[in-house]
This record gives sequence, structure tokens and C-alpha cells, in this order.
Amino acid sequence: MKIAIVAIGDELLIGQVTDTNSGAIARMINPEGWEVARVQVVADDADEIRTAIDRAFEAAPVVITTGGLGPTKDDITKGVLTEIFGGELIYDESVMENVRRIFERRHLPLNRLTEGQAMVPDSCSVVQNRYGTAPIMWFDSPRGVLVAMPGVPFETEGMFAEEIFPRLRERFTSTDYVEHRTLITTGISESALAEQLTAFESSLPAGAHIAYLPNAGYIRLRLDCHGSDKAILAQTADELAEKLCAAAGRYVIAKGDHTPAQMVLKLAEAYGYTLSTAESCTGGNIAGAITAIPGSSSCFLGGIVAYSNSVKSALLGVDPAIIDAKGAVSEEVAAQMARGACKATGASVGIATSGIAGPGGGTEAKPVGTVCIGVCCCGAVRTITEHFPGNRKRVVERAVSRGLLLACEMMRNAHTGSDPLLNIPDKSGK
Amino acid sequence: MKIAIVAIGDELLIGQVTDTNSGAIARMINPEGWEVARVQVVADDADEIRTAIDRAFEAAPVVITTGGLGPTKDDITKGVLTEIFGGELIYDESVMENVRRIFERRHLPLNRLTEGQAMVPDSCSVVQNRYGTAPIMWFDSPRGVLVAMPGVPFETEGMFAEEIFPRLRERFTSTDYVEHRTLITTGISESALAEQLTAFESSLPAGAHIAYLPNAGYIRLRLDCHGSDKAILAQTADELAEKLCAAAGRYVIAKGDHTPAQMVLKLAEAYGYTLSTAESCTGGNIAGAITAIPGSSSCFLGGIVAYSNSVKSALLGVDPAIIDAKGAVSEEVAAQMARGACKATGASVGIATSGIAGPGGGTEAKPVGTVCIGVCCCGAVRTITEHFPGNRKRVVERAVSRGLLLACEMMRNAHTGSDPLLNIPDKSGK
Repeated sequence: MKIAIVAIGDELLIGQVTDTNSGAIARMINPEGWEVARVQVVADDADEIRTAIDRAFEAAPVVITTGGLGPTKDDITKGVLTEIFGGELIYDESVMENVRRIFERRHLPLNRLTEGQAMVPDSCSVVQNRYGTAPIMWFDSPRGVLVAMPGVPFETEGMFAEEIFPRLRERFTSTDYVEHRTLITTGISESALAEQLTAFESSLPAGAHIAYLPNAGYIRLRLDCHGSDKAILAQTADELAEKLCAAAGRYVIAKGDHTPAQMVLKLAEAYGYTLSTAESCTGGNIAGAITAIPGSSSCFLGGIVAYSNSVKSALLGVDPAIIDAKGAVSEEVAAQMARGACKATGASVGIATSGIAGPGGGTEAKPVGTVCIGVCCCGAVRTITEHFPGNRKRVVERAVSRGLLLACEMMRNAHTGSDPLLNIPDKSGK
Repeated sequence: MKIAIVAIGDELLIGQVTDTNSGAIARMINPEGWEVARVQVVADDADEIRTAIDRAFEAAPVVITTGGLGPTKDDITKGVLTEIFGGELIYDESVMENVRRIFERRHLPLNRLTEGQAMVPDSCSVVQNRYGTAPIMWFDSPRGVLVAMPGVPFETEGMFAEEIFPRLRERFTSTDYVEHRTLITTGISESALAEQLTAFESSLPAGAHIAYLPNAGYIRLRLDCHGSDKAILAQTADELAEKLCAAAGRYVIAKGDHTPAQMVLKLAEAYGYTLSTAESCTGGNIAGAITAIPGSSSCFLGGIVAYSNSVKSALLGVDPAIIDAKGAVSEEVAAQMARGACKATGASVGIATSGIAGPGGGTEAKPVGTVCIGVCCCGAVRTITEHFPGNRKRVVERAVSRGLLLACEMMRNAHTGSDPLLNIPDKSGK
């Protein structure tokens, strides 16, 4: 089954807001064999919205629109949908009750504009929005189903998962399924990996293919299998994933679709480590990546963002003489920071970074992109120096990944004999 | 002038990667009066790509494609473009030199697949990609210009800014300009703000309108003015922005388009404060938001991510008896954390958070979303308790914004008599 998405809003086209709803919807529907066929991003403009909806129905029998449902003048989606599907705007008391409930919970006074949210076309069925005031509108038409959802990500994500997708699955039974299997590789370029996998790719049966998804410091290798029999498909995908894993060889560091932070946490949980960080150039982003994962408090004790040299010395015990002699961006300092993180927090593993993220601060000897990474694992310390390409954001992203991946390596090395491959089920159920 | 964007890649449609290139391009072209008319996201599928390009040319004379240019089998954009624009693939030595240079810099061995990057259609002009191996292809056709760019954000952002946009501006002279002015408001809901601005909105001249962009804890209010005379337009926009600011009244906290982290840093720079953080539930994200800004090291000294109670006590001096009596999520603990951040780092301002981001950990008295925030500014401490809606990510985002905005308020209060409004030029030049 296919869904086409129309993301509506001037803010998306001028780059003030990034459309994350489409990706969130895709991640929810893919495991059930549903696919997002297309995404169209359009302005708050009646003609553009109409054209986009027309074309979306050419691509799929289910169209989801997001955005343009707010109470303000710039939001026109409701009016356009009323024109397309007919009917007229009527006052819906159930929507008004929902609006009142949300305003009471947030201790805000009601106002005339908010009350306008309760006007909905009588050509739709309303799905109450538990997370916000804009009603979700479900339109049935000869061309298919259109569901108009809000632009605010947590409203659309919550309501799509809990209400809209279950209803869509009742309505449409799928006959085309897709299974994804993902491997994580590191230490090899996309093209070299592809060359290594040439024979494997040529041997793939119809309906199966692999995609290379390069990330900061690692590549996600995704195997997609399409078919009509769900059970056979899952088995085929498992078998092909095993072969793919063998073909990619020593570059594979994990099975399943995980971020480096998820891998670190899984390994720490599995092996009984506790985690800490000592970050200079990554500025809290390693801690942020770990704590983004629910339940991370079971292993992650805390960390120090040591941006200034004085904080490196005061909180992490870095020797000022070493900073003077080697510079703050040096493996010696990274090593002391990693040890210092363990000592300060009482954790068994410490991940440290010190580098030059740019755009300023580079020298000939240590250009922008130079990052020293240190990991302390049960007293043993390893350090590396990397030269990352790209801008400030990119250098930080790469340094975060590399620090986390080095921690994975150190934790595994400390556990010689245990399974060297992290094997966590994919989001698609396997 | 309008640009239509076609973002190509299965990974975008299954939600493994989010398209950020379109937003980046929009932010670069808007200040020059250029607009992104539409964005279409499509799969690595020849028919889909062809259709999307056809329709993109209906919307704009300039089409940018992103993605699908990698050396691997799943990337088919180059082949499809050769079909559309004619010609045949030829070996381009200048591309091969670029590929060699990049591989040498990264100390990677060349391979056959990478060499395939040097095959380009003879119907295009090649623009050398300084940031990666995939050549950028510029096609001139009776329908307009199509430029095929890579999917990797830092490659496309860098090359679009430095090479592609300058060339496009030489080719197309614009007669329709747009000016944006942005205000930041807080402490009022979108609908209440819109009600307050009803009269102002009705008074706006043709070509001008305002958009409400709700963020985590604040609303960006963007005034858009379209017109054909650039000088008059800028003046009109300035005048209308002043009126908008007056109409929004006390809810305006800044002029210009700034994140809370940018505001904190600007205020700290202006007033001579140094900054530190003590984060529990926000897990390093406040430090991360501040350090994402180039030059933040001039004011930001560092911080502590105090996830466990032991770290709160050991590094921030939080009294374990207070944690026992009031709980880690309490204003008392947030206050001690904020003071502790200043003491540990030597900074004059400390921003602290302790809360329950969920999904687990909530109780009846302190449900998920409860966040205590404390800010210490030159010894004075203020604390607040918030109840944020939404999931883990959303709660953290809101807590980050609220902590930073409270710090802005405290810094301003400490500077009675200075301009209460932060006035920084918009990215659009004003």
C-alpha cells in the first residue's frame, strides 16, 4: 500500500522549518509493508495545494496532508479542502470541547481565533487531536482517502501512530510487503564497499536490492525485499541479510539499524559498564546523543563539557603543563580528559573529544577538522587523531560518531570472546 | 525568481534520512529575492524522477536535483538525466583528478566504482565538486536550467553557495524581490497572538503578510514583503516591522531571527557575562545549542551533565539531603545545580535543568514533562517549574529553550536600563 504526502507551509519552503513528519510517517508504516510513494512540499497557496493533492492521488490511494491547520490567517488548508471535497463549514462541539480541555490544561485563556478551530467541513469525519487544538479531518472520496493532519511534529506523529494508521490499515489490506534489514559498517568508503559487494548485488533475486546510506563516520547498508507473501519474504530477507553480512566481512560492526549512541548503550548494558563523557569540541553532543535514548540513565552517569582550558584542568584534572606543551587539541589532553571523566563521575568508560570545529581556530599544524578523541575503558586508554572534512556542524557530527564508535571498540576488546557483532532487531521487526 | 527542487533517494522516503538540502538552499536564496517554489521528494526510480523533473519545470525555470549521484547501483540520477537531456556518457579527466585528490587527502585507495564518477553526459557542463567525488552537472535546455547536485548536505550547501547560486544569478536577473523581518515572541499562544494582531494584519498592504512559526517555547513572527523595487521594499519592510513590533507589544523579546542560544550568547557578549550549564534531563543539549554557534568559546566556559544523583552532588555540590527530601526534580535542586555550575566553572551565569523527559519515570505528583529550571546570574538565582507536553524529544527541546530564555531574562534584569529588546539583523540582511 502506498501513501502520498503533501506537506503544506511557507515556513517549509523558506527553510525556517524542516519537514520531519514525512520521515516519521514512513518509519511507522514501512514495517507493515506500507510505503511513502512521494512527498510534495508546497506553499500556503490554494492553487499549489489543489495541484499537489491532485497529483498525490495519482501516486497513491491515501493522501496525508500536514500543516496549514492553525487558527491564523496564513493557514488555509481547511478552506481548500472544503472546496475540493465539497460541503460547508459547520460548528463541531466535540472539537470545541477538545480545544477547551487543552487550553485549561495549559492554563491559557480561550480566544475567538481558537474557537475558529471548531469550524469543520461537514464533508469530513473529525478525528479528535489529543495533542493539539487543530482537528484532524478524514475525507472519503472516489479517488481515495485524504487525511489532513497538523504541521506540529509531535501532534502528527502521536495521532498518526495511535489513530490514523490503525484506521487506514482497517480500510486497506495490503498485498505488497517490504522487509528491510540494515547492517552498520565502518572503516570503508561507500565506493570501496560497493565494489566489494558487486558479486553479491548481482546475485540478488528480483524484488531485492541494497542501498548505501553514508553517515558521519559509518555507512548504513540497507537490504530491501519486496514480495507478496509476508512469511516467505521475512525468511528471504533474513537469509539475504546473512549473506550480505558475510560479503561485507570485517567492516560490519552491527546488525540492525542503530546509531552509534544506541550501540554504545546496548554494549554498556550487555557488559555492565557505566558511561561518562568529557567533551570539548563536541560541546555536549555526545552526552546529548546518549541521553536522547529512553532508559539511558541506567548506564550513563554524566559528563563534563570542558570548553575552556580552566574547566579541563579544574574538573577533569588535565595538567596545565601538558596543555601548554602539547596544546588543548592533542592526544595527551584527550587521554587525560577521558581518564578525568571516569574519575569525576565514577563511570567505568569515559569518552573525550578535543578538536577544532571551525570556522576559526585552525593552524597549519592543526587545521580546522582536527579532532583528538580519547576513550578510557576500565583504566585502559586509547587515543586517535582524525581530520574531518566539512563545516562546524559536520565536524562535530563526525567527532560524536567516532568517539562513540571508538568506545564500542574498546568495550568489545575488553570483553574478548564475546560476540563481536552487535545484533539488535531492526525497526522493521527483525 | 523561482527554483523548484527535486530531492531524490529511497532513504528520504523511508525516513532514514531527512531532506535538509531544500531548507539550506531556501535560506541562501531568499535574501536575494529568490524563492523555492516547490520541493518534490521521490524515490530512486527512473519514472518518478522523470515525472518530478517535468513538473518541476512547470513551476520554475530553474530545477535543482539533489541525491542519487553516488557511485553505487542504487543511484540512477545520472542515467535518467542523460536520457532526458540527450548525449552520452563520456570520461572526464578533470572529474577523475578531483576524485583522486579527494581520495589522496582521505588516505583511501581508488577503486573501479569511484572511477565511474568520472563518466558524465556530454550534454552537461561539469562543475567540480570541491567537497566530494560526485561531479555537479549543469544542463541547459529550452525549458530552463537543471543542476544535479549530490545528496550529502555539506557538499550541496557548500557548492550551491560558492558556485551554483552565483552562476544562476548571472544567468537570471530577478524582478520580484522579497524581504523578511522576524520577531521573537514568548509567553503567548499562537492564537492569542494572532487575535492581538488582527487589526495590524488587516492593515497590511498588498504583497505583505505575516506568518506564525511556533517553536519550542516561543513563536517566530515573520513578516514577508514582496515587491519589484528592492530599495522601497526594504524601507517598507522596516516600517511594517516596527509597527508589528509595537502591535505585538510586551511579548516581543527580540528583533531578528535568532534561536534562544543565539540570544543568550549575544547578551552575554554585550554585557560581559560568561556562561555555564548544569544539565540533567536536557543531557548536554543546552551546551550543545550554545556551542553550535561559531565563536561561542568567547563566553561559554563549560558545563556538567549531571545525569546521576551522585554526579549532581560530587561535581555540582548538590546536598544529598535535599535530593532525598525534595527529589532530584525540584526547584531546590535546580537552584543548587545552577549555583554549582557557576562555582565549578567560574562562570557568572549558570543554567540548570532537572526534569522527567519520559517516557518512563513519571509519578502522579511529578508527571512526565515536569522540568525544574534554575538560572544563577551573578549570584542571584531564579527557579521555575514547567509542565511540558509531548514526547521525550519535545520535552527536552522545550526545556532547552525555556532554560536559555530564562537566562536571557536574568541577564537583562541584571542590566536594568539597557535596551530590553535584542536587536540583531535578520539573515535576509536586516
